[in-house]
Amino acid sequence: MARVVVDVMLKPEILDPQGQAVLGALARLGHSDITSVRQGKRFELELDAAPDAATLEEVASTLLANTVIEDYSIRVEES
Amino acid sequence: MARVVVDVMLKPEILDPQGQAVLGALARLGHSDITSVRQGKRFELELDAAPDAATLEEVASTLLANTVIEDYSIRVEES
Repeated sequence: MARVVVDVMLKPEILDPQGQAVLGALARLGHSDITSVRQGKRFELELDAAPDAATLEEVASTLLANTVIEDYSIRVEES
Repeated sequence: MARVVVDVMLKPEILDPQGQAVLGALARLGHSDITSVRQGKRFELELDAAPDAATLEEVASTLLANTVIEDYSIRVEES
């Protein structure tokens, strides 16, 4: 059994209103040393079989991330 | 400048309808070797100052995660 983590973040040039809202709340709470917040998604997949890099790429790029506006990274945590 | 990543995931005992929907779609697309999907949030913070563990704990537990239903982990990526 393998555990795979896929992180999906908006591309740097895409506005992130969720992150902006968090940053605004942090500033109001006095955490002005935090200068930037970006919010993304984290997927934890569990696989029966050994993870196959090509399959994981396909899953991440077609289903988990919208590659027009998002970047993703795939990490096999245990296999 | 420091970069901190906070991962927020639903606690294992909490149902995750988003993850279930992704798992269902994967099964329909033929990826039946994937047995579980959990979806969570990833926050990337940038700080001017050196990150202070107590402050990061406070930010993560009060603002980024709902600790009644979510677990979080804090990782300082560069400082």
